[in-house]
Amino acid sequence: MRETWVVGAASNRFGKMSETGREAGTRVAAEAIQASGLEPKDIGYTFVSNCFGAAERQGHVGPLVNSGLGIPDVPSCTVESACSSSSAALHEAFVHVAGGFADAALVVGMEKLSHLDTLAATSYFTLGADCAYETKNGATFPGLYATLATAYRSVYRTTPEMFGAIAIKNHANGARNPNAHFQKEISMETYLGSPMIASPLRLYDCCPFSDGAAAVVVAAKEFVKQPVTEPLVIRASARSGSIMDMQDRPDLLGLPATRTAADAAFRQAHLGRRDIDFLEVHDCFTIAEALALEDLGFLPKGAGAGAALEGITARDGRLPVNPSGGLKAKGHPVSATGAAQVVEIFEQMNGRAAGREVPRAETALAHNVGATGGSCSVHIFSRR
Amino acid sequence: MRETWVVGAASNRFGKMSETGREAGTRVAAEAIQASGLEPKDIGYTFVSNCFGAAERQGHVGPLVNSGLGIPDVPSCTVESACSSSSAALHEAFVHVAGGFADAALVVGMEKLSHLDTLAATSYFTLGADCAYETKNGATFPGLYATLATAYRSVYRTTPEMFGAIAIKNHANGARNPNAHFQKEISMETYLGSPMIASPLRLYDCCPFSDGAAAVVVAAKEFVKQPVTEPLVIRASARSGSIMDMQDRPDLLGLPATRTAADAAFRQAHLGRRDIDFLEVHDCFTIAEALALEDLGFLPKGAGAGAALEGITARDGRLPVNPSGGLKAKGHPVSATGAAQVVEIFEQMNGRAAGREVPRAETALAHNVGATGGSCSVHIFSRR
Repeated sequence: MRETWVVGAASNRFGKMSETGREAGTRVAAEAIQASGLEPKDIGYTFVSNCFGAAERQGHVGPLVNSGLGIPDVPSCTVESACSSSSAALHEAFVHVAGGFADAALVVGMEKLSHLDTLAATSYFTLGADCAYETKNGATFPGLYATLATAYRSVYRTTPEMFGAIAIKNHANGARNPNAHFQKEISMETYLGSPMIASPLRLYDCCPFSDGAAAVVVAAKEFVKQPVTEPLVIRASARSGSIMDMQDRPDLLGLPATRTAADAAFRQAHLGRRDIDFLEVHDCFTIAEALALEDLGFLPKGAGAGAALEGITARDGRLPVNPSGGLKAKGHPVSATGAAQVVEIFEQMNGRAAGREVPRAETALAHNVGATGGSCSVHIFSRR
Repeated sequence: MRETWVVGAASNRFGKMSETGREAGTRVAAEAIQASGLEPKDIGYTFVSNCFGAAERQGHVGPLVNSGLGIPDVPSCTVESACSSSSAALHEAFVHVAGGFADAALVVGMEKLSHLDTLAATSYFTLGADCAYETKNGATFPGLYATLATAYRSVYRTTPEMFGAIAIKNHANGARNPNAHFQKEISMETYLGSPMIASPLRLYDCCPFSDGAAAVVVAAKEFVKQPVTEPLVIRASARSGSIMDMQDRPDLLGLPATRTAADAAFRQAHLGRRDIDFLEVHDCFTIAEALALEDLGFLPKGAGAGAALEGITARDGRLPVNPSGGLKAKGHPVSATGAAQVVEIFEQMNGRAAGREVPRAETALAHNVGATGGSCSVHIFSRR
């Protein structure tokens, strides 16, 4: 297996895009390639994610992106795994490059839903849940994650302030990220006064619908030779699945796919949890960040919710989590999210995260969940 | 790179399904695994294709299929490349297994649109074309392929009977395939009397909308050791792209992606065109079969249209093409088509194609096109 690097990464500002998804995806892809010092012709395969392309009446978007980059003959496919789509695409890129099938590969994730009303956008989102047993019975993601939060609160002693602190921390980080959807700090008062969306989740427990695009260029060490940026060595690229339907799971105190993907990733990387300097985790709701810290094996069960309130997960804490602002504040353009986590790690390692740097970061982990955990990707990166 | 085999394959009868896509996909996947002699737990990765899952309000279908197979923790993703989706998924499965990332991988393609009216189904199909420059201007696939047929007829001397013979041959083969959508022979009179759909394409030049599901199990030779079926050795798995928009292509006398994918496949296989015993090609319209034979390099330019009328492509001809009945008669459940081509080759090599056998077949090629050729996959298989 060849040592495989992330050599370029770029995203646009998440929020509301005037461009179409394909335009934004093509533009950030060109920026990521330019950042890598490679040329478009070096790309051997393009993996695009665009879960809700149908909302723009466009599928089969890979050839359009490649044509825009001037490499129409390069093969492509679209990779979908709900909210973990572009990390699943990154896994394919890793396998192609590490396995010697391509010297370099491009990952592009983009999403645009802001031209739809909330009901229509919600309807697209729910494609990631089980249509027959969840969606048709009225479940949407705030409701499903509220169920996880309720289960958690029934077992562990929590306070609303614990979850509020997660949102406050991520908004504080997002306020320092020029590509974040929300670049505004919030107070505990604002959090506690925000309307209930799906009890116990308040507005500020929930990530927004965002438009956005992010791209990552992966290449073999032996192909790059003289990187123009500080590359991220991909120490692990692991994915897992689990029973999708929450009612069929043995318990709701975590996401089984995160546990199995994390264990696989740490085995692959030959690293332990203590070796990781910071995390980008999938905080579609505040409860999701709490569960991620436990399921990834960084904190004991029941300790995830309070970590932000205790300052553990602050940028200067023992275990910085979501310096980008996370899905909560950076935003969650579904198919761009997994790639955007890698963009943040790339920027941190390249001294491009001014104002939100994680001190002395040498290793980082990205954790991207599909829907309520039917799928999960865990990637571990380090400096050379 | 590890020698990689197709060790199991299965499809349902194409046409109209009462099952949902996920039910049919799960069932044929279980049948393909059973045919392989492997067990579900041997599967290391599942690649699902289901372009139009939104028509059933379901995305993120991999975890549902895996849960149905009793392997919920196995990672999965959905792979889309318009009509070449499940051959693109097969390529990922090949890369994972040949590269040593999985010992066995599952490919499942399924599609269901029969519950929609023709306009809604057409609207899903057109996701594969360029929304901004083709679809929004009213183009649909019969119109786009009619343009290719018009260009062809403007340069090469053709007769309607040449295209009729392609349809007649494929219907004759489909009549002998118990899983074909249309199991009925047609006459030249029927062909010539059928209504014009998009001049010069008549009804019998066009493949149908079909529901259907097909699955393929891929495994490393060293993992299987004692195959219970005659495995297909994957001699080449190649993909390519091209400019999607027909108005931007240098000429319309073929699909550039087929040419580049075929050249890559033959280089990879270390085989020549004369080494191939039969073909499954992407005949979404009769003109597409004619172009495929030329672009794949089996016939000179201008000779593809007349091949069926001359008997060259009959099951007992010099170059048998689409013994399954092809998309024309077997049907075209978009995301199942690429996998179904492999099912046919697997059945032919395993003596399970009674009544439509290609005599003395040792090698075969599968050719699967995305939309009007923005993408193309070419796979070459041989007996051990």
